[in-house]
Order: sequence, then C-alpha cells, then structure tokens
Amino acid sequence: MKEADAWIAWSGIAEPPDIAAGWLIGQLGAHEALAWVRKAETDPVGATHDLAPHADPPLVDAVIGAVSRWSPRLGAIDAVEIRRRTIASGARVVTREDRDWPQCLGDLAFAEPFALYVRGSGDLSALMSRCIAVVGSRSSTAYGDYVASSFAAEVSDAGWTVISGGAYGIDAAAHRAAIASGAATIAVMAGGIDRLYPVGNGDLLERACRSGAVFAEVPPGFAPHRARFLSRNRLIATAGVTVVVEAAARSGALNTARHALELGRPLAAVPGPVTSPSSAGCHGLIRDSQAVLVTTGADAIDLATPIGEYAVETGIRGTSGMEFADPRHRRVFDAIGSRGSLPSAIAREAGVGMGEVAAALGRLELDGLVNRVGQHWKRASTRERQ
Amino acid sequence: MKEADAWIAWSGIAEPPDIAAGWLIGQLGAHEALAWVRKAETDPVGATHDLAPHADPPLVDAVIGAVSRWSPRLGAIDAVEIRRRTIASGARVVTREDRDWPQCLGDLAFAEPFALYVRGSGDLSALMSRCIAVVGSRSSTAYGDYVASSFAAEVSDAGWTVISGGAYGIDAAAHRAAIASGAATIAVMAGGIDRLYPVGNGDLLERACRSGAVFAEVPPGFAPHRARFLSRNRLIATAGVTVVVEAAARSGALNTARHALELGRPLAAVPGPVTSPSSAGCHGLIRDSQAVLVTTGADAIDLATPIGEYAVETGIRGTSGMEFADPRHRRVFDAIGSRGSLPSAIAREAGVGMGEVAAALGRLELDGLVNRVGQHWKRASTRERQ
Repeated sequence: MKEADAWIAWSGIAEPPDIAAGWLIGQLGAHEALAWVRKAETDPVGATHDLAPHADPPLVDAVIGAVSRWSPRLGAIDAVEIRRRTIASGARVVTREDRDWPQCLGDLAFAEPFALYVRGSGDLSALMSRCIAVVGSRSSTAYGDYVASSFAAEVSDAGWTVISGGAYGIDAAAHRAAIASGAATIAVMAGGIDRLYPVGNGDLLERACRSGAVFAEVPPGFAPHRARFLSRNRLIATAGVTVVVEAAARSGALNTARHALELGRPLAAVPGPVTSPSSAGCHGLIRDSQAVLVTTGADAIDLATPIGEYAVETGIRGTSGMEFADPRHRRVFDAIGSRGSLPSAIAREAGVGMGEVAAALGRLELDGLVNRVGQHWKRASTRERQ
Repeated sequence: MKEADAWIAWSGIAEPPDIAAGWLIGQLGAHEALAWVRKAETDPVGATHDLAPHADPPLVDAVIGAVSRWSPRLGAIDAVEIRRRTIASGARVVTREDRDWPQCLGDLAFAEPFALYVRGSGDLSALMSRCIAVVGSRSSTAYGDYVASSFAAEVSDAGWTVISGGAYGIDAAAHRAAIASGAATIAVMAGGIDRLYPVGNGDLLERACRSGAVFAEVPPGFAPHRARFLSRNRLIATAGVTVVVEAAARSGALNTARHALELGRPLAAVPGPVTSPSSAGCHGLIRDSQAVLVTTGADAIDLATPIGEYAVETGIRGTSGMEFADPRHRRVFDAIGSRGSLPSAIAREAGVGMGEVAAALGRLELDGLVNRVGQHWKRASTRERQ
C-alpha cells in the first residue's frame, strides 16, 4: 500500500510526461523518491550526494532542478483523498504494482504514467495488448467520419480494440462504430476521470465504460489543460498501430502520430481528396514516408503487432545470460524498446549521452545483437543472435 | 530521302515497340535493315552470317525469328503513299533524321519510334523537352476531372506542356485545362493521325493541334487497336514526370505508370477518397512506393526535370574520353538511360545478358562511374566521377 500510495502521489505531483521524475523513481522506487524530494527541499547538497552512484551528472542536475516544481504540490497531495475521489467517480486506481498494468506503457520508458484512473468493466491490460489507435480531427468531414467508422468496425470485428481520445469528430466516430460492433473500446482522457470530457460525448463515453474502459493518468479533479491533451496522446500512441484518418496540416492528431514514430510503433494514414484541407496532414505523413498509406481496416491490422506477443515471438526478453564487452552496452541494449527505439529515446531511457549511445549501438550491431531499421534500432531476435 | 523513307517504311512494317527491329536498325541503319530483311526472306543463312559481327547469338536469333512477321507487310508498304496520306491529313512526318525529333524518345532505346506523324503548329521537340504527363481513367469522377484540370492549369501556367492520350475522362480534362490556360498541349494517338480518336473528343483534339501537337507513331490509316494503346503509353511516359490522377485497380493508366518506372522517370500519383474505386490504383502505387504522393501541380513540377537539360546539368553525355576495363562495360554504361535504368532495361538496350549486366554494374559502381538509386542505376555525374 505504501508504494502504491507513493505512485498515486507522484501522479498528482509530476505533470506527465516528467522524465526527471520517471528517472528518479526508476532509481529509487516511488516511495523512496518522495522521501528524496523531501530531503532535497532542505538539503540539496546531501540529496545530490545520495544520487551520485546512480547516474551521469546531467541527469542528476535535471532532477535537482525539478525539485522546485515538485515541492509546491508535494505538500498538497493526499493519496487517501485521491483514492476516495476515484471510488466516488466509479473508478479504480491501477499502478505499476498491479498485475493489470498495461505492458505496452512500458515502452514509454521514463514517460510511463505513474498511475491510471480507470472506469469500465474491461480488462485494460488485455485490451491494450491488442489495440489499434484511430485518431483524427475534431472537425472531421462526413468522409472522415465514414472512414473512421468503417476502419473501427473492421478492426473490432477482427478482435482488436479501438483506442482513441474520446473527442468529437474522428475519435467519436471510431468509438461509436466499435461499440456498435459489440466490441470493447478504450477512451483516454486528458483530465480527471471524474469528469468525462467533452461533455457532449458523455453518453458515448459512458457506453465505452460499460464494455471497455475510459482512463486518465491524472487524478480526479485535474482539468483537461492543453498540455495534458498532448501528454495524453502518447498513451494512445502505445497501440499496436496508430491510424490517422483525417488531419489538417496542424491537427492535434499529428502530435499522436509523432509519438507513435518516437515509440517506433507503426504509423498509418488514410488518404482523402486533395481538395480537402482535412486530409492534408495525412498526405504529408504519407509523402514524407512517415506513415504507410492504408485504405481499409485490414491494412491497419496487417501493420499492427500485438504488444507483448512480439517479445514472445522473437524471444528478445531477458539479457541475463548475455555477455557484453562493456556494462554501458548492456544499459543501451536494455534501453531499446521491445518494438525498436530512436537513438534519442535510447539515450533518454539509458540515461547516457547521444555519443555513447551511437558508439554502443555500433558495437552491438557488429556483434549481431541489434539491427537498424530505418531510423530505429531493434534488438536482434534470439534466433538472429545464434 | 532514302533513309527517311526507310524509317517511314519501318513505321508501317514493325508493330511498336519492336525491339528486334529497333536493334537491327541500330546496327545497320533503317535503309540497310530493310535490305537485310529482303535478303533474309530468301537466304536466312547468309543473312545470319551478315549479322555475326554485330551481336550476341540470342539477339540475332530474335531478329531472324522476326523476319516472318515483317515480310507480309514489307511488300505492301509504300513510303510515298504514306507521305501522300500524311499530307492529305494536314500532318507532317518527322523521323529520327530530323532536327525536331524529340530527344526524350531516345531513352526508349530499341523501343524508340521509327517515325512520328504530327499535326499542329507547336515545336514538338521543344514542347516535349519540358512536359508533364497527366493521365488517368476514361471513366473519371467529378473529383478526378477537377484535380486533372487544376494540375494541368498549374503546370501550364508554370510553362510546362501537358501531354496525355486524348482519351475521355482524365486525359480530356487535362488537355482542356491546358488549352484554357492558353498553353500548348500534346495528345498522343494510338491509331493513325488521319482519324483523331475518340471521335467525341474531335473538337478538343483539333484545338490541341492549333497551339500544340497531336501525333501518332503508326502511319495514317492504321486503326487504334488495343495493343497500340498500350504501346502509345510508353511515348507519353517519356515526359519529365507522369502524374496518375485517377486510376482504378486495373486502369490503363497504370500501364503508362509502369512505362515511366521502366524508363526511370519520376512517377507521381494523386490520392483520393478511399471509398472511391477510381483512386484505388493511385493508392496502390503510393503504398508500394512506386509513385510519390502529390497534391498540387507544383508538387509535380518539383519532381520533373526537363529532358535534355538534365544531361547538361550533370554532364553525363559523351563517354569518348573515358577508359573502361572491358569493352562490355562501356556498352552497359552507354545503355543506361540519361535518367537511370532498371537492369532489365540495360540488358535489353545493351543486348547482353542479365548476369553480365550485373557484373558490369558492380564493377562500374566500384569505379564510381554509376550509382544505384533504388532499383535503378544512374550514370555518375562528371563531378561525382572526379
């Protein structure tokens, strides 16, 4: 309970994604990390010293620098009160301590959420292991709504879960079609689970709770600020594939697309009339080879791999029996997400500089332990390594 | 006149593209090649012997085998009569002997036409050196017609010539918009120039003649058979870029697209609603990375390079001062089109086997004389070679 309460506290203290908090907790655990922040408030030199064995100086500096933004909330947050409000909202808390914590979120590394506030009867972890994100403009066209519906229906009928943001437009069309197919769907909120947003989609989101799940990573009472919409998008992008149905040149859906690319997840986009500004963002993603052109839900399923199953298929989990020439190489290797990572993401997760990452990847590639796929690096499968 | 008449005769004897005829004429010249066919009719052994110094046995075999299909037409063809009918149609003959033979056709190698029957006041060679093909379905949608029109208008306004097939649908929309912009446009006929086809586009094609050009590679009186439509498409595909505006899954426009790829020319496709079968062919080309997604005429112009200007820019013409380790390497090098070629096209043009082409390209690449770009091989520019 002590550690779970600490996770809940962190979900209210650190505004996601807070890489410094993610790293600190990774080093010390959630409860100890809280204790460390309290010490750092009064004894920054001593706190710095405590972290010395753990990391490179730049990361320690980042954490010390973050104390001043965590402090104001640290005194105000109350895990017991958050639990009470969660239950009052008809929701439950899931933390990384729990068995039903979705495995796909692990690929977010230091940007992984601290806790999830979940409404709904669905098995969140199981649903998210086989899910496809369908995203797009809030101001969708009739064409976009039609395409989102037909993709969502096809994907649902094939046993995949549609995940989206619960917003107007494409999101709503996708959730609605999934529910109409008799399937579970997942909506991710930017604000607290106590207030389903937007209000106009209240009925739809209540229906999503019934068979699937609606969740937030911020505690009840937290408002859906713009920054939280952008943070929330990274959770949607952990799906097996993200499909952008309609997106104008500066649509928020392109932010979700960027998260998918950073995670090394497949990204797909649906083309539309070149006369429609609502498809311009999709066309840009396809033209720049960032997204694969898809025209049907079946195309999207072809691109998606169930999260978790991948690791089993290729046997890349567990490095215990492996030998590395340099301990930093193991850190870099372990920092590669199960579906491949960009060097920048590896540097973030491993807590080492880009130069070191490049050197380590070069060596690991020579040893046949990693492969480069485009901009991404993937761990070689057990078979490839032999 | 003797050689020009021989070219005219060949345009009526060999059904384009006739690689064997193209190769034979390349070796002997048009007039001598006719004489050779006459000899081969009665003395195949002697004729084979005459070709021995020229080529690999498989090519000689192909030419010998072709004699039986050339013979029936050889007796019937009359260059003087073809000239008379050409003039009667208000057209003129252009052969490779003429200065206004379009340079871009040279990249067709052995599939280059023997003669062109041209109506129109435009300077065909100049127009074709800066032209963009806009092609698509005959049964186009309103969306496709609109897009073809706006592309053609934009391209025309920028000083490029729109080339297409004069057919209903996308072709007609493109020609019409070019003419409306006050620009020259080129329509390529599958049958003889004496009968503009299709009849329903007669007025449009007459207008195309006025400022631009309409031409055919078969003599007057030849019917627009299906095979001739497919052959005609390769002439359209010599444009600086081919833009497929709308094409169903098995549209004839995809044949033009294939020709552009074989020629190493840039290929572009316009996306459309995924709910429209008329865009399925375009989506397939984009998804398979065969065509670049374009949404405006400006995008298409960005992809196009004026034919002829390219050679000047990069200085790749003329191999006289170059040294090759093996004379076959020079043949392979010379066989590479000015805008890059597939190994199969190089093999065809050079008249050597695929294995030899692969070996030669590997060596030329080591020597820095050629570069591989995707599936295509290009000659290195003079600057790269130094």
